[in-house]
Amino acid sequence: MNISRRAVFTNAVALGAAGFVQPAFAKGRGRAEVEQWGLYEIALNGPAGGNPFRDTQLSTVFEGAGRIIEVPGFYDGEGVYRVRFSPPETGVWRWKSRSNAPSLSGLTGECIVTAPTPGNHGPVVISDDGFHFVHADGTPFRQIGTTSYSWALQSAEKCRQTLATLAGAPFNKMRMLVFPNVASVATDPFVRTGAGPKDWDATRFDPAYFRRFEDKIRQLGDLGIQADVILYQPYDPVRGYSDMSRSDDEAYVRYVAARFGAFRNVWWSMANEFDLIESKSDEDWDHLFHTLVDADPHDRLRSIHNIRRYYDHRKPWITHASIQNGAAVDDSIRAELHRAFALKPVIFDEVVYEGDIDKRWGNLSAEKMVERFWHGLIGGTYVGHSETYAASGNPDHSWLGQGGTLQGESAPRLAFLKRIMEEGPAPGIDPVQPWWGYHVAGREGEYYLVYFGDTRLAEWTVAVPAREDSAAGTYKADIIDTWNMTVTEVDGVIELSRGNEYELHASAIGAIALPQRPYQAIRLRRIGGNGNP
Amino acid sequence: MNISRRAVFTNAVALGAAGFVQPAFAKGRGRAEVEQWGLYEIALNGPAGGNPFRDTQLSTVFEGAGRIIEVPGFYDGEGVYRVRFSPPETGVWRWKSRSNAPSLSGLTGECIVTAPTPGNHGPVVISDDGFHFVHADGTPFRQIGTTSYSWALQSAEKCRQTLATLAGAPFNKMRMLVFPNVASVATDPFVRTGAGPKDWDATRFDPAYFRRFEDKIRQLGDLGIQADVILYQPYDPVRGYSDMSRSDDEAYVRYVAARFGAFRNVWWSMANEFDLIESKSDEDWDHLFHTLVDADPHDRLRSIHNIRRYYDHRKPWITHASIQNGAAVDDSIRAELHRAFALKPVIFDEVVYEGDIDKRWGNLSAEKMVERFWHGLIGGTYVGHSETYAASGNPDHSWLGQGGTLQGESAPRLAFLKRIMEEGPAPGIDPVQPWWGYHVAGREGEYYLVYFGDTRLAEWTVAVPAREDSAAGTYKADIIDTWNMTVTEVDGVIELSRGNEYELHASAIGAIALPQRPYQAIRLRRIGGNGNP
Repeated sequence: MNISRRAVFTNAVALGAAGFVQPAFAKGRGRAEVEQWGLYEIALNGPAGGNPFRDTQLSTVFEGAGRIIEVPGFYDGEGVYRVRFSPPETGVWRWKSRSNAPSLSGLTGECIVTAPTPGNHGPVVISDDGFHFVHADGTPFRQIGTTSYSWALQSAEKCRQTLATLAGAPFNKMRMLVFPNVASVATDPFVRTGAGPKDWDATRFDPAYFRRFEDKIRQLGDLGIQADVILYQPYDPVRGYSDMSRSDDEAYVRYVAARFGAFRNVWWSMANEFDLIESKSDEDWDHLFHTLVDADPHDRLRSIHNIRRYYDHRKPWITHASIQNGAAVDDSIRAELHRAFALKPVIFDEVVYEGDIDKRWGNLSAEKMVERFWHGLIGGTYVGHSETYAASGNPDHSWLGQGGTLQGESAPRLAFLKRIMEEGPAPGIDPVQPWWGYHVAGREGEYYLVYFGDTRLAEWTVAVPAREDSAAGTYKADIIDTWNMTVTEVDGVIELSRGNEYELHASAIGAIALPQRPYQAIRLRRIGGNGNP
Repeated sequence: MNISRRAVFTNAVALGAAGFVQPAFAKGRGRAEVEQWGLYEIALNGPAGGNPFRDTQLSTVFEGAGRIIEVPGFYDGEGVYRVRFSPPETGVWRWKSRSNAPSLSGLTGECIVTAPTPGNHGPVVISDDGFHFVHADGTPFRQIGTTSYSWALQSAEKCRQTLATLAGAPFNKMRMLVFPNVASVATDPFVRTGAGPKDWDATRFDPAYFRRFEDKIRQLGDLGIQADVILYQPYDPVRGYSDMSRSDDEAYVRYVAARFGAFRNVWWSMANEFDLIESKSDEDWDHLFHTLVDADPHDRLRSIHNIRRYYDHRKPWITHASIQNGAAVDDSIRAELHRAFALKPVIFDEVVYEGDIDKRWGNLSAEKMVERFWHGLIGGTYVGHSETYAASGNPDHSWLGQGGTLQGESAPRLAFLKRIMEEGPAPGIDPVQPWWGYHVAGREGEYYLVYFGDTRLAEWTVAVPAREDSAAGTYKADIIDTWNMTVTEVDGVIELSRGNEYELHASAIGAIALPQRPYQAIRLRRIGGNGNP
C-alpha cells in the first residue's frame, strides 16, 4: 500500500442510513465508517483537461465479506472524481482504484461497514416468491407509488413543498424523470454550446444538474421513498435528450449508474412510454439494459414503461413489469394476467390520473383511483397514483408535472389501503384461483381479502376457493369500507368448512351482510384450526 | 444421375390437395407430379437390421424455385424408408438423398410441382399483421377449434363416426394427442418388450401406430381441418411416454416431424398442460422446440399449452399462444391482454368444456361456451371448444376423450359465429382501444362489432372509439342474436360523426334499440364516406 498516494484524497465520505443529510466524514488514516447499505464515497483529484467525461476511465475494486465488487467512478467537474459504493455486507471493505489516468490509478483505502441503523432496511429487491417486493433485510415493501415527472427540477421552494407533501402522504415510490418534460428551473443536463435548443454537447454532462437531482434522491430517501428514476422519455422533441447516438446513450447510462446507483432508494426505469420514442428500437432498449446491468454493480431494480405496446417483461434484465394500462386495474383478473405473463412483480405505474382536466387520461375520480389500487391489490399487483388537478387548467403545472401540493381525495384512502396491506401477510398477498373467476386474494388457510368494487351488495355468500381441506377452520371477519376508511368487525366467528369440491363455505351463517354501498371489502383472518391442527 | 440406383425405389407417391385419399402414383421415368403444398413421398429400400430408427440417418435435399430444402426421412419398418416433402412452390424440384447407409445415399429424382387444385390453400401461417391466421395463398383461416384427445386411437368405426360428426360441424382445427390419454384401441407407439406397462422400447417406434395416426391427419385434411398434434401430455403416468430421456425425446420429435410434417394441415402443440409434466423443465421444453425447429423443414405452426402457468410465448420458436384459461374469455379485455403480452395470435384452446359432469372443468353451459367464443373474438383472439357429455358419466367416453358424436348445443352457434367472421374483414378483426375499456372490435373506419354478453340491454348508445376523423361516415347496422342465430338489419343508416375527442357518435339517432335478451351483438358496416371520400 502506497501511503504517499493517499494524500491525493480530497475526502472520503460515508453517508449513513437515515444519514443522507448529515454525512459522517472519514476520520484519520483514510478509514471511514459507513453502515451497511449506506453510501461510501471516495473523492479523488484527477485530470481536468480534455474531456474528462470521456477520456478518463475510473473504477474501484472493493473487496470484503468474501466478495469482490468493481464500482465505476464518475467525473464531478473541477478535477474531482468520485466513486460511490453502497456496501451490501458489514465488515472491512478494502479498495483499490483502476484508471487510465496515472494519478487515479492504484490508490487504496478501506472502510468499515457497521450494522444498519434503525430504519435502514436496505434496498428494495424482489421477494423470494417472485411477485412482491422486500427490503434487503426482509422487511416487506408495500408499493404505493406516485408520479411527479419533473418535481426535482423545480425551484428550491417548490421542491420543499413537494417534499412536505410527501412527508404527509402514503407514497413510498416516486417516479421522476432525469430529463425535464414540463417547464422547469433546471433544464440542462449537458453543457450548453449556444442559444438554440439543440446547442448542447452530449459528451459533457453538467455536474451541477446531476448534483441537484441526486440531492432530491437523497431527500426522498430520508422520507423512506424509493426514487424510480426514469432515464428516457418521449416528451422532449425540441432538445432531444432522449434521441442521442448510441455511444452518447451508453455514456449517459453509465454516468447516472455511477452517480445515482449507490443510493439505496434508487430504482431504474429505462424509459417512460418507451414505445413513443421513435429514435430507439427494441434492440436499442435491450442494448441499453445490457449497458445498465454492466454499469450498475448495485444491481438496482430495472423496468421500462409503455404506453400502447408492452415490452417483453420476461427478459432477464427486467426485475418487474412497469405497466401503463387503465383498463387492466378495473378488474383484478386482468391485473393478475400481467403477473401470469411476466412471472415477476407488476406495478401499474400509470392507470391514468385523478384530476379534472378535459383529457381522458387526467380526469379519473378519486373513487375510481382508489378502486384501481384495490383491484390491483386483489390481482396480486401494485398500482401508482398521480394527480392532474391544476388551478391553471394546465396539467403541466399539476402534481404530475411539477409536484407541489395534492388537491385530490385519493391519498388518505391510499394511506388506509397501505395500513390494510401492512396488517396482512408479508411480503404481500396473491390472487386465489383467479382463472376460475374469483376476485379473492390472500394466503390460503390464513388470510383472505375479497373486494366488491363499485357494486352495492347486500351480502356476500361466503365462498373461498380452496383445494386443500387444511384451509378450513375458524376465521374472524371484518367489513372494510375502503372509501370511508372504516374497519368493522363482524360479530362472532366464521367457521369455514368444505362446501363443495372447490370451495369452503360458512354453513352456519351462509352469508355476511354488507352495507349496500360501493367500495366495500371483506377480510377473513384465521384464528383457529379445524379440529385437525 | 445414376439411373440404375433408381431401381431401388419402391414407389414415389404424390398425394394431391383434396387428394389425401387417392394418391396419384408417380409414373414413368421416376418423375412424379404433385401439386403445390401437396405431399410428395419417396419410398426407398434400405437396411432392416440392427435398429434402423437409430442407426440409419436419411435426408433428401430438394432444390427448386431457387431454394434448397433438406427434408429428413424416417424408417417405416420392413426395410422401407420414406421421405415426405410438401413443395412450397411450383416448378421442377430435383432431389438427392444423403445417408450413412450406402444403399440410401446419392439417390436422385425429381418431381414436377403443379398449381394447387381448387380448395388447396396451402398450410396455415401467421398473418402479416401478426395476430391472425391465413393460408399460404392468403385465404383467411378463421379458427374455430375443438379437442378430441384420443379420437384417432379409437376403433375404425368410432373414427368414422367422429369424422362424420366433423363433416357436419364448424370446427376447422382438431387438437389430438399422439399418446393416448383415455381407453383406446391403439395404445403402443413403441415396440413392446413385455407385458408390463413400462415394457416398451423407446428406441423403436411401431410404424403401424404412426401410420394409423397419420391416416387420421390425412382424413382431417380431406375435411379441411387442421390437425393440432400434441406431442406430450401429463395423463400417462403408467406408461410414461411423456417421461422419456432427452435422447429418446429427440428421436421421437424427429420421427413425428419427418412422418407428419409434410401434411399441410399439421400444427405442432409441444405439450398439453406442459406445466403438469414433472419430468420436464422449461429448459427441456426449450430444447425440444429447438429440436423440432431443426427437424421440421416445413416450419409448421408451433405452440405449447398450459394449465396453471403460462409458458413464455414471446420465445421465437412459438408461432402462436395456446392458452388454457376459462376466466380470460369471460371478458374481451382479458383476452386481448394475451395478445398484448404474446404479440402473436392467441388461441384459448381450453376454456373448460360444454358438458354436464360434476367437475367444474366439464359443466359449462352451451350458452357460456358460445359467449366465450364471442368475447375471445372481440378480444382479437380465437377460442376452442370441446364437450364432456357422456351417457356413461365418464368424461373419458365423451367427445373430449374419444370423439364420436356431439351432444351439446354450442356447435350450430359456432357455425353461425364462423359465418359472421367470414362476412367480416380478412384476416380477422382487432380490438379497438381495449385499454380504454371498450368491448369493440373491428377495423377502424370500416367495420365494428360490439358484443353485449349476458347483459340484457334495451339499447346501445352508439359510441365508437376513433382517433381519426376518417372513420366518420355512413354505416349499416345489424343486430345479431348470437344464440338464436339471427341477423336483423336496423332500418335506415347510421351516420357516425365526431361526438367528442375520443368517440364517434350517431347524433341523429343516438342509440340502437336492443331486444333485452342476452347474447346480442351489433355490427356496423360502412357503406359511405363522410363527405370527404
